[in-house]
Amino acid sequence: MEAMLRQSRSMCPFLKKTSPATLRSLSTTTAHNVSVGGGSMSNLQVLARRCPVMGKALAVQSARGCDASLAGVYGGTRACHTKIARANLHTTRAKGAQAVDIGTVRRERDHFPHAVKPQLQAAPQETPVGPPPPPPPVKFDYEGFYNAELDKKHKDKSYRYFNNINRLAKEFPRAHMSDKEQRVTVWCSNDYLGMGRNPQVLKSMHETLDTYGAGAGGTRNISGHNQHAMALEKTIAKLHAKEGALVFSSCYVANDATLATLGSKLPDCVILSDSLNHASMIQGIRHSGARKLVFKHNDVADLEAKLASLPPEVPKIIAFESVYSMCGSIGPIEEICDLAEKYGAITFLDEVHAVGMYGPHGAGVAEHLDYESHLAGKPNGTIMDRIDIITGTLGKAYGCVGGYIAGSAKMVDTIRSLAPGFIFTTSLPPATMAGAKSAIEYQMAYQGDRRLQQLHTRAVKDSLGARDIPVIPNPSHIIPVLVGNAELAKQASDLLLEDWGIYVQAINYPTVPVGQERLRITPTPGHVREYRDHLVEAVDSVWRQLGIKRTSEWAAEGGFIGVGEAGIKEVEPLWTDQQLGVDVVLHEMKAGQGAAGVLEAVLENERKETAQAVAAAA
Amino acid sequence: MEAMLRQSRSMCPFLKKTSPATLRSLSTTTAHNVSVGGGSMSNLQVLARRCPVMGKALAVQSARGCDASLAGVYGGTRACHTKIARANLHTTRAKGAQAVDIGTVRRERDHFPHAVKPQLQAAPQETPVGPPPPPPPVKFDYEGFYNAELDKKHKDKSYRYFNNINRLAKEFPRAHMSDKEQRVTVWCSNDYLGMGRNPQVLKSMHETLDTYGAGAGGTRNISGHNQHAMALEKTIAKLHAKEGALVFSSCYVANDATLATLGSKLPDCVILSDSLNHASMIQGIRHSGARKLVFKHNDVADLEAKLASLPPEVPKIIAFESVYSMCGSIGPIEEICDLAEKYGAITFLDEVHAVGMYGPHGAGVAEHLDYESHLAGKPNGTIMDRIDIITGTLGKAYGCVGGYIAGSAKMVDTIRSLAPGFIFTTSLPPATMAGAKSAIEYQMAYQGDRRLQQLHTRAVKDSLGARDIPVIPNPSHIIPVLVGNAELAKQASDLLLEDWGIYVQAINYPTVPVGQERLRITPTPGHVREYRDHLVEAVDSVWRQLGIKRTSEWAAEGGFIGVGEAGIKEVEPLWTDQQLGVDVVLHEMKAGQGAAGVLEAVLENERKETAQAVAAAA
Repeated sequence: MEAMLRQSRSMCPFLKKTSPATLRSLSTTTAHNVSVGGGSMSNLQVLARRCPVMGKALAVQSARGCDASLAGVYGGTRACHTKIARANLHTTRAKGAQAVDIGTVRRERDHFPHAVKPQLQAAPQETPVGPPPPPPPVKFDYEGFYNAELDKKHKDKSYRYFNNINRLAKEFPRAHMSDKEQRVTVWCSNDYLGMGRNPQVLKSMHETLDTYGAGAGGTRNISGHNQHAMALEKTIAKLHAKEGALVFSSCYVANDATLATLGSKLPDCVILSDSLNHASMIQGIRHSGARKLVFKHNDVADLEAKLASLPPEVPKIIAFESVYSMCGSIGPIEEICDLAEKYGAITFLDEVHAVGMYGPHGAGVAEHLDYESHLAGKPNGTIMDRIDIITGTLGKAYGCVGGYIAGSAKMVDTIRSLAPGFIFTTSLPPATMAGAKSAIEYQMAYQGDRRLQQLHTRAVKDSLGARDIPVIPNPSHIIPVLVGNAELAKQASDLLLEDWGIYVQAINYPTVPVGQERLRITPTPGHVREYRDHLVEAVDSVWRQLGIKRTSEWAAEGGFIGVGEAGIKEVEPLWTDQQLGVDVVLHEMKAGQGAAGVLEAVLENERKETAQAVAAAA
Repeated sequence: MEAMLRQSRSMCPFLKKTSPATLRSLSTTTAHNVSVGGGSMSNLQVLARRCPVMGKALAVQSARGCDASLAGVYGGTRACHTKIARANLHTTRAKGAQAVDIGTVRRERDHFPHAVKPQLQAAPQETPVGPPPPPPPVKFDYEGFYNAELDKKHKDKSYRYFNNINRLAKEFPRAHMSDKEQRVTVWCSNDYLGMGRNPQVLKSMHETLDTYGAGAGGTRNISGHNQHAMALEKTIAKLHAKEGALVFSSCYVANDATLATLGSKLPDCVILSDSLNHASMIQGIRHSGARKLVFKHNDVADLEAKLASLPPEVPKIIAFESVYSMCGSIGPIEEICDLAEKYGAITFLDEVHAVGMYGPHGAGVAEHLDYESHLAGKPNGTIMDRIDIITGTLGKAYGCVGGYIAGSAKMVDTIRSLAPGFIFTTSLPPATMAGAKSAIEYQMAYQGDRRLQQLHTRAVKDSLGARDIPVIPNPSHIIPVLVGNAELAKQASDLLLEDWGIYVQAINYPTVPVGQERLRITPTPGHVREYRDHLVEAVDSVWRQLGIKRTSEWAAEGGFIGVGEAGIKEVEPLWTDQQLGVDVVLHEMKAGQGAAGVLEAVLENERKETAQAVAAAA
């Protein structure tokens, strides 16, 4: 049964959209009012009868006993309802049907636990003559439904409590809580480079705000297209060395709209999707209605097997990410490009957590992989050049808000012309677009922020490792610290905030699978030594206080998702020692005692350089 | 056939997502490679075989001839492919299959017009011995596909050319084109009240930008929740007299995410949708997978018939708008509330084009309908109070960007907890939220802008009417001028821009139906007499130049969508003479000659009051 459901789900456009739990429930629950001739039917069979092809066969079979006079009331299947259904509809009924009706109502109530009677029913004995009065209509209890949904979230500990965090531009990476005097250090923002307080970004935003006002005033087609949109898209296209780019309200919308549009328009399109893809891609693929094949995370062999199973002429999209934000793993971009070319697929690469952060111009991991070529201004034939569609955000390392796609001129024009999520929405404000453009340009010209961010990341990972704190190994700037329990993760986050003034949000289901709950730490160029030492001290203390497992304890159990697993070779960071310009120093640091001081010296130099660059830019 | 397809579509969750054209094509085209035992099958039948219930019966039938050794290659149906398919997959094949293969490839090429060979095939005669070499794989031509899609748009005149319009805060409603010296008057912005340049809005944005930076830095759950989000949501809830509110990137996302979430989570939910609903609602309903019943635009009888056809206990959402932006019609909100209560449905009202514009506090049409009660601060029992979910935008009359929902605390918390489009996206920037809050508060306290906007609307409608220009009648602030032809509408828009310095975007398919193309004019408080006179003169001239039909000409043909239709009583504007405070003046104006001067006098007074209020606020 389970196997059949699983297989059917992967094939059928309808079943794909439905959870296994719902399918199971549909095939084991009995439909109300649909049983013809006294037999019983599962709800799944009821749905099958609505199919225009197979429904016919069922219709012939069920023609016996069908009340033709009701045909059309519900169309299809429901036209075969007995009089009970009709009586319910109009809240009047023949006396003879009553006994059956009561049962029906009861069954319906079981099916609709939130159905309620809006008023009290008169007691039968008060109606001495004539047919009994119609029972009051049973209405759905919407508030009860909301309550039940929220209860479920509370019970499985996935209910989310938002923290009131007001990040202060002039005290980055500090913020105040609801009390304006209460300071905390933010250790989980995606404003990875502090561009949200960058003087050049703020300057261009202030100026644009004064000259062009607060909002765009319309969709791109109706008065919302302007020089800021054009200049921003030109800058993005240049960043990724593509012909064109298109800006959206967010990268959630960019991913959703682009995949939904391509997947639905390309004839018989199949989308191959990494199992850890972001919710926005999953939604876009679902919305496209295209066939979806999920390949194992970063598993090119599995991807190739799936590609090879498809006819070569069928259009295919391989959708994946460069940096997977919750575990920090990095996609095998070059291998996926090779496979795409071999099997005639296009590549759709989400660089949301990588733009600004990798590559000599901050164009992302794809650029980073050909560091020297891009540094020399030669993008032709590089991996980034081979990617068909790159998507990115203006709201993380670039410090603003909004998302985009970049690719061939025709592809961009097609999405511009067809995607409802682009067409029917108000443009980003001119000041936002101007600020984002400044941020991209700043990061295209200056390497200091992302290098310092990487050095801080290394320092924190090293220090946490030295204290046996379980960092999930990865080659990126993300520091996922494994907790493995939703309640503990929230407690750790709360303790860090309340006792230590450190804000690191707990990451629970559905953002990560149950059992893989974690704290996700994101250093920035502003997290200088005093903040880092404080963080490591705090995490160590909270781990002790709550008795959360250390790396050695995970190792004793055989390891888990990379933590404490034997035989796993050390992950090399994507930014090499050489690219960071600290290979010699790091070598010394690893060799001897007191070397941490040397790293700190390097960091201090970097910090000063950054401060000077920022001051010069202001 | 057509009727069956239509009926099946309304019932079946799978077919609902598929256009009739595709279904027709699926049932008339023959599948390649799927025919078992030499029979032929439609592509629709192929899909039916993937159904876990009915597929079984087909599997039994087709077991004859099935190559069991291939089971698993495609799963389900495709496991029964002949060797042809497998040979194609691996680009090597047995000689015996060749003749069949060639036919297969040809048929596949017909099915995939964009399939191309990536390299030339060696001529057969150059391979004297052994089996012929495998033909090169046929890959899909993505660029060819994009080209073809764009060609279609060019051919049906629905290809969109964006105008570079830079609205100048200090010269509202003027803008510059790509040349910064070239001024135009914007007559189609949705910044209806000029709040995008309101000094209070800009002041709070500048201050917030300086203190809290450019971006939020994260999702609401991860460092993107702050005092600005909380204060804005509190203000929105207060505006609509609801328990709670939730802010999204845009109202497109708000509508999409909320309807998709409710429609998919409420068990067996049915969504009743006005036929003119905005694309964002249509997408949300589609994404929900819920059953959808479209009722005729503003037709409560049709809505009631559809509600009555549904069991009372089934959850139902009636989704509709207050002001339909492309024709300016207004939804029958009170009647729909009555029906919702009678049939146990909830109401989902999109007030996107009405917030800021109607009601004593700018809460929208629902507020306007109980003008006196709300003016007295008594929302209980009003129509607005009866609406379950109100959605609105911060990007039109409030001059910023973003969207929201407002309703019961539990409903809002449920969407906050479940909607991926809310959960997985970066928050709006603090400055945007602060600016939007200022705009709402300003409009809650000050009636002048929206009253002046209404007076300007009346003046333009009257003047265009006096020149026999075909304004589609409506009670709102929208002035849709009927052209009825896509090319003519674009030409009219181009002429207005080039010859008259007036920017009014042509509205073509898919925003309006083919044949109903129009210019959509939106006056603001800034469109004082000189701009209005110029507009009317320009439109009159362009109509003459292009020979576009006038109202009298539409009337001679029997009228069209309200223009020149006999027996249609004059539409009363929603803002009454009394509410605008000009009943006496307007009465005089209608009575005698030269009265237009009186209206202008009123307008001049209004303008001065506005200027004073703005100056006082700055």
